[in-house]
Amino acid sequence: MQTATTSRRQLNVNSARLLQELETLSKFSSVEQPDHGTAVTRVVFSEEDLRARAWLKQLAVDEGLTVHEDAVGNTFLRWQGAEPGLPAVATGSHIDAIPHAGMYDGTVGVLGALEAIRSLKQSGLVTRRSIELVLLTSEEPTRFGIGCLGSRLISGTLDPERADALHGAERGRESETLAQVRHQAGFRTPLSSVRLKPGHYHAWVELHIEQGPLLEREQIPIGIVTAIAAPASYRFEIEGVGGHAGALLMPDRRDSLCAAAEIILSLEKNVLATGAIDTVGTVGTCDVYPGAVNSVPSRVILQVDIRDVDPRRREAVMHAVRQDVHELALRRQVKVSETLVNADEPAICSQKVINVIEGVCREIGIPAKNMVSRAYHDSLFMARVAPIAMIFIPCRGGVSHRPDEYATPENITDGTRVLAGTLAQLAME
Amino acid sequence: MQTATTSRRQLNVNSARLLQELETLSKFSSVEQPDHGTAVTRVVFSEEDLRARAWLKQLAVDEGLTVHEDAVGNTFLRWQGAEPGLPAVATGSHIDAIPHAGMYDGTVGVLGALEAIRSLKQSGLVTRRSIELVLLTSEEPTRFGIGCLGSRLISGTLDPERADALHGAERGRESETLAQVRHQAGFRTPLSSVRLKPGHYHAWVELHIEQGPLLEREQIPIGIVTAIAAPASYRFEIEGVGGHAGALLMPDRRDSLCAAAEIILSLEKNVLATGAIDTVGTVGTCDVYPGAVNSVPSRVILQVDIRDVDPRRREAVMHAVRQDVHELALRRQVKVSETLVNADEPAICSQKVINVIEGVCREIGIPAKNMVSRAYHDSLFMARVAPIAMIFIPCRGGVSHRPDEYATPENITDGTRVLAGTLAQLAME
Repeated sequence: MQTATTSRRQLNVNSARLLQELETLSKFSSVEQPDHGTAVTRVVFSEEDLRARAWLKQLAVDEGLTVHEDAVGNTFLRWQGAEPGLPAVATGSHIDAIPHAGMYDGTVGVLGALEAIRSLKQSGLVTRRSIELVLLTSEEPTRFGIGCLGSRLISGTLDPERADALHGAERGRESETLAQVRHQAGFRTPLSSVRLKPGHYHAWVELHIEQGPLLEREQIPIGIVTAIAAPASYRFEIEGVGGHAGALLMPDRRDSLCAAAEIILSLEKNVLATGAIDTVGTVGTCDVYPGAVNSVPSRVILQVDIRDVDPRRREAVMHAVRQDVHELALRRQVKVSETLVNADEPAICSQKVINVIEGVCREIGIPAKNMVSRAYHDSLFMARVAPIAMIFIPCRGGVSHRPDEYATPENITDGTRVLAGTLAQLAME
Repeated sequence: MQTATTSRRQLNVNSARLLQELETLSKFSSVEQPDHGTAVTRVVFSEEDLRARAWLKQLAVDEGLTVHEDAVGNTFLRWQGAEPGLPAVATGSHIDAIPHAGMYDGTVGVLGALEAIRSLKQSGLVTRRSIELVLLTSEEPTRFGIGCLGSRLISGTLDPERADALHGAERGRESETLAQVRHQAGFRTPLSSVRLKPGHYHAWVELHIEQGPLLEREQIPIGIVTAIAAPASYRFEIEGVGGHAGALLMPDRRDSLCAAAEIILSLEKNVLATGAIDTVGTVGTCDVYPGAVNSVPSRVILQVDIRDVDPRRREAVMHAVRQDVHELALRRQVKVSETLVNADEPAICSQKVINVIEGVCREIGIPAKNMVSRAYHDSLFMARVAPIAMIFIPCRGGVSHRPDEYATPENITDGTRVLAGTLAQLAME
């Protein structure tokens, strides 16, 4: 413990180099609209993604780290510890970016981790455990319709066969499956080899921008994530009766869009009724058939996203929505069917890892607050193979997934220092 | 008067011929899906439409009618009266059909009118006034995005230059303007020549299927239309603030879809509050941006259709909706802008023409009821150049614009007999 504390005081995070590398990484981008300013588009296994991966591996090799890649392209960059047989301490994030995104989501956790490892090396520290920087494949769902591909496979949350058959509906590449794409990218071993056992890592820590407004609003430079809310998504299909907007009389109507409107407001009402800041619910799409100004809607499909750190509260909201749906379907004589698309369990962070981060913040003198992550992260799945926590830094206006996503150099540097100290302490355990 | 009454008693409507001709007309169809049963697709100025027009003109010529066509393809088939200088009595409808429609909408009013004229001729009646069967161009909005092209131009409701520039967004013919299409079809005089003066016709009567369920439900074979409701359509654009469905907290939301849901329900509520069976309101489309399950909707566009025979009541409903919109926009901090897309005046039918139809029904012994048309018809615009009324016959289940649209031979025959008697009496005035 003494060694780690001493070394932390001498940590020298090279802020200029880190910012320069973030800038360089942002140039590996296939932005279709050249006039789109600083937008970053880096879809997994695109040419840009593969070039960015090569560049990053070279940086790691230059630093003396070993490189290992698994069947889905998860990339493990390892700084060997004094007792390499012990479970390593792991950190990392993702570098893929949705179309016209910003340059900080994911990348801060990858390049920040590299800089953290460099600073530990330069301090002369020799850790017991190895420290592994893990670049996780396809955190964004852009190409294959499902997020966190790499970490889902690592944690055994996604069946390897099902994963290999995934293909996207977007971006004109719909015919290519993950199996085809990863083979072309050179990752040819069976996907079943990706899974890691619980306990494989001693701990996992991910540095990330908040993607929310709280830290900026409260002017606190570090958020320590105590839980990651997981989304459940549902599809509601409402079948009413269509007809001519002029000829179908009001008493005879079984209008599916009016029913859908009630469902949209029911979700909002029941989420607000929890009074919990950690509960959020959204209807993100509303597809209307036949969809003509002079036709009474016969069918509507809604997609619902609901997130909470407490899965029971999430389910209680859906239960209340279902009661409303039951009542309105009877009253309006429409048929409503509900499909569960996806429901991941929330992750509760390790109190032990949280304590370490809190201690490091105190020691360095950086204010921190505990908070919940309402956005998805690979850490949600890494929690199944290791005790985890996350370190958040503020981002301007809470904006993410947009070209104007921004984090200050000071906040990035502070986050990296906290990460370095945390890795050091965990690796000495 | 005596002559007309006598002749009416002797009227011999050839029901078999009329049904055969309806069947023949339905075959002029360009159905893309050959397995679609009895569906009729006959878009204005398509090859099928032009062939159907030629067939119909030949039928009229065979009957000794004169043929005149105007610049937009409205076709006037005239049976000369004893005093040809007097304003004629006119009847007619349309033969164009939306994709995958039925075989009775419009066509019953065209072929029924032809059969009515034949029966009058065969009865030996000599009318004072000429009787004109008018085939009106493009009652359906399929090709050029706006319905009742022919009757709008006749009534001066549509500017000829604007009309010539119209082009459709559908069916892959979007680059062709009305000017181009009508020239290719052989209609080359200026559109400004289409307009007719008020008083041009002594009266206008249109026979049509109800396109609603009332006559069938009440088992009444004839509806006498006393007014035609006209639709107004509006576009509401709701601008809120988008964001990540996980990260954007509920108290910070300005969700445009929740606001849109309230507008949808406000329209329904305020239409129902009139308590008037003649008021109908519909939100037919709801476009959500960005439209992803994990994005809070930033913008929604609704299209609203509202119809009434009383334009003040229609406007009162919109006024009440606007009050709700004002309140919810303030409360939800969203911006709502309203655009009037289209608002035609309703048409009130001529009591004199209604009286004639009522008298004919009584005399023949066919039950009839007065009613309102909530669907658009060319008669809405013909009302600007002549006293009008419409004769409705039942259609099964109120269904129209679908392949299963159906009217019974008995109802078609009854409607034609009533039309013949009505034309005879009006033409003797």
